[in-house]
Amino acid sequence: MHTIIDFTLIPIGTGVSVSPYIAACQRVLDEAGLTYQLHPNGTGVEGEWDAVFAAVKRCHEVVHEMGSPRVHTCVQIGTRTDRSQSMAEKASSVTRRLAEG
Amino acid sequence: MHTIIDFTLIPIGTGVSVSPYIAACQRVLDEAGLTYQLHPNGTGVEGEWDAVFAAVKRCHEVVHEMGSPRVHTCVQIGTRTDRSQSMAEKASSVTRRLAEG
Amino acid sequence: MHTIIDFTLIPIGTGVSVSPYIAACQRVLDEAGLTYQLHPNGTGVEGEWDAVFAAVKRCHEVVHEMGSPRVHTCVQIGTRTDRSQSMAEKASSVTRRLAEG
Amino acid sequence: MHTIIDFTLIPIGTGVSVSPYIAACQRVLDEAGLTYQLHPNGTGVEGEWDAVFAAVKRCHEVVHEMGSPRVHTCVQIGTRTDRSQSMAEKASSVTRRLAEG
Repeated sequence: MHTIIDFTLIPIGTGVSVSPYIAACQRVLDEAGLTYQLHPNGTGVEGEWDAVFAAVKRCHEVVHEMGSPRVHTCVQIGTRTDRSQSMAEKASSVTRRLAEG
Repeated sequence: MHTIIDFTLIPIGTGVSVSPYIAACQRVLDEAGLTYQLHPNGTGVEGEWDAVFAAVKRCHEVVHEMGSPRVHTCVQIGTRTDRSQSMAEKASSVTRRLAEG
Repeated sequence: MHTIIDFTLIPIGTGVSVSPYIAACQRVLDEAGLTYQLHPNGTGVEGEWDAVFAAVKRCHEVVHEMGSPRVHTCVQIGTRTDRSQSMAEKASSVTRRLAEG
Repeated sequence: MHTIIDFTLIPIGTGVSVSPYIAACQRVLDEAGLTYQLHPNGTGVEGEWDAVFAAVKRCHEVVHEMGSPRVHTCVQIGTRTDRSQSMAEKASSVTRRLAEG
């Protein structure tokens, strides 16, 4: 099952800067070979369900290893069976609607 | 890695009633033998990471099999390494704070 | 417009214990006179849109005043125009489905 | 109070295509004069709390007017008191960390 997710990871019990942890998560996604897209408030990832959630789990492990005693992640998950769709197509379908007025 | 999650599943492209799909997800959680707790806006689940996310995946599959072409789930995930904590303890720690004023 | 929301507030840049902040948010909801329901991973609230979001804003202000430099909240919002529905009815409609098998 | 949010709106009880509703929400944000950024799985918005949430409320109203009997939105909200920060700065702080290795 293919999925597109969007996740925002928050370390709890560490300092006010979140960016080192987010950068570490990007490296996890790179190593996993997944297609992902960073945006200001989270990261979109697409791929097979098991590979995607193995990467999210690895992000939690890595952030704990960096010293964060608690990690909270908000994830939105989308799956569809009517047709295949990539993140790039999701964004362009809205852009096209806007162009059509 | 133990985790506590809270998820809200939404079938897209079906009717206005969501409850049959949520009831089907409860059965998935029962069959998985996971500890869970229904609340008006979602379901809390606790257990080992892999078992919990296998159940969430199974919920997506079951809701697709029931005829929903798209499924969207919002999940909040918590893990901690400083100590173990159950859902029951999370709720009672807030209640205790309130009682203390 | 009536709404049912469910929110999970996370202080960032403070200690590992979240419960004092959650307890403070409960007091905000009490003072606002809103119907709410605590669960292990968040709080459900129902009421008029403006009153509900004024309370969420007040929660952010209070948690900042308690010393948290950053506050992150994940909120799920539901509105419907086909009929009115309370949080109590949402939960019981799933329970009824389960009883029906 | 300044805030950066990220929201994903889902019409319930309509067809499988979500893009017309998302396009309508973009128009709401344009009319509100808010800074926003579309990504494949949602929309980031920044501005004063009251203006931002007035726009989210207006999105729910507009999607109901387009014929959706139920609307579900997942919103992540961030506020901070230690310093001001824009969406553009949030993204670039992670990019900078990655470049530093």
